[in-house]
Amino acid sequence: MLARTDRTTFRQRPHRGSLDPEIIAAILDEALTCTIAFVDEGRPVSMPTTHWRVGDRVLFHGAMGSRLAKTMAAGAELCVTVTLVDGLVLARSAFHHSMNYRSVVLFGQAVEVTDPAEKEAAFVALIEKLAPGRYAAVRPPTPKELAATRLLALPIAEGSAKIRSGPPVDDEDDMGWPVWAGVVPVRLERGEPIADEAAAGAS
Amino acid sequence: MLARTDRTTFRQRPHRGSLDPEIIAAILDEALTCTIAFVDEGRPVSMPTTHWRVGDRVLFHGAMGSRLAKTMAAGAELCVTVTLVDGLVLARSAFHHSMNYRSVVLFGQAVEVTDPAEKEAAFVALIEKLAPGRYAAVRPPTPKELAATRLLALPIAEGSAKIRSGPPVDDEDDMGWPVWAGVVPVRLERGEPIADEAAAGAS
Repeated sequence: MLARTDRTTFRQRPHRGSLDPEIIAAILDEALTCTIAFVDEGRPVSMPTTHWRVGDRVLFHGAMGSRLAKTMAAGAELCVTVTLVDGLVLARSAFHHSMNYRSVVLFGQAVEVTDPAEKEAAFVALIEKLAPGRYAAVRPPTPKELAATRLLALPIAEGSAKIRSGPPVDDEDDMGWPVWAGVVPVRLERGEPIADEAAAGAS
Repeated sequence: MLARTDRTTFRQRPHRGSLDPEIIAAILDEALTCTIAFVDEGRPVSMPTTHWRVGDRVLFHGAMGSRLAKTMAAGAELCVTVTLVDGLVLARSAFHHSMNYRSVVLFGQAVEVTDPAEKEAAFVALIEKLAPGRYAAVRPPTPKELAATRLLALPIAEGSAKIRSGPPVDDEDDMGWPVWAGVVPVRLERGEPIADEAAAGAS
């Protein structure tokens, strides 16, 4: 279990919270994007980006000139948030409508990874996350490309998951209300791949 | 167009940025969840929640005791971030892999809406976003339920959209590399509704 801190104490609906690193890892692995929040001159900034996980670290990358990557490399305090929506919860009462979801919030500071071999291994993991088995087939990064890309690693040390699942929870008095109630599942689905012009022409 | 501010000046890849309120509204409307970032004792906190849009405001709600809702009601500076992933961009080189996405980042302070009629109208809009036509059929909120729920409105005034679309952009030298290249579209799809036990028994 991750240590419970003041920032990961569940005030609302504590039964939905978890500090289980396996649950946290599974949510991080399924999500394609996260938001990274930091403080800029006392005000919050939160930007979407791609993340991936290797062991007990979450990884991020960006161009050398990217403000977000620079901010992370400088050791800024971060809050990383990941959300997967699993369903629309349609209750009998307007009040009890909800969503099923799995989310993770992580706190901490990232460190920049500069070793080229470690960087390349991380990018292997990123491409394998997007398309398992693909890395062996693509043109690998050159030393110049590796140098042009900043790699940041955030330890999964302080954070938590939050999960809602299952049917609506209506008040007893509303159970006879004449309306359909239940869950509409939602899921990020992959469609038919679309070859680019050169790839389509080659086949 | 929204006014360009220092916080909505596109430093990286400016062609991907937009201040067009219609583009921003369409992304906000399609997304089911956002993250709301604020500053707590100098450190960033970013939490996932549901949002919806009515005109030129984004709305949020929470239980009266919710920390996030209280923070917003107190006038905290916020950064609201929405991300839709549209595709995995699989290039010939590892380096040019990317994602197609549409995102919005908004800055500002929310105001609490306390008028019961205005609150109910907002909740109509939320339920209609999740399930068009449903509000007329559900048990409407009681005055007590309205009073137990905080409603917050953030004006869409400072913010921007960022969009990547289309095929991978490979280096000329890599166009002959023998690997499939293109886009794998991804989309949040709704599945077959699952009636809860009472609703299933009634049909």
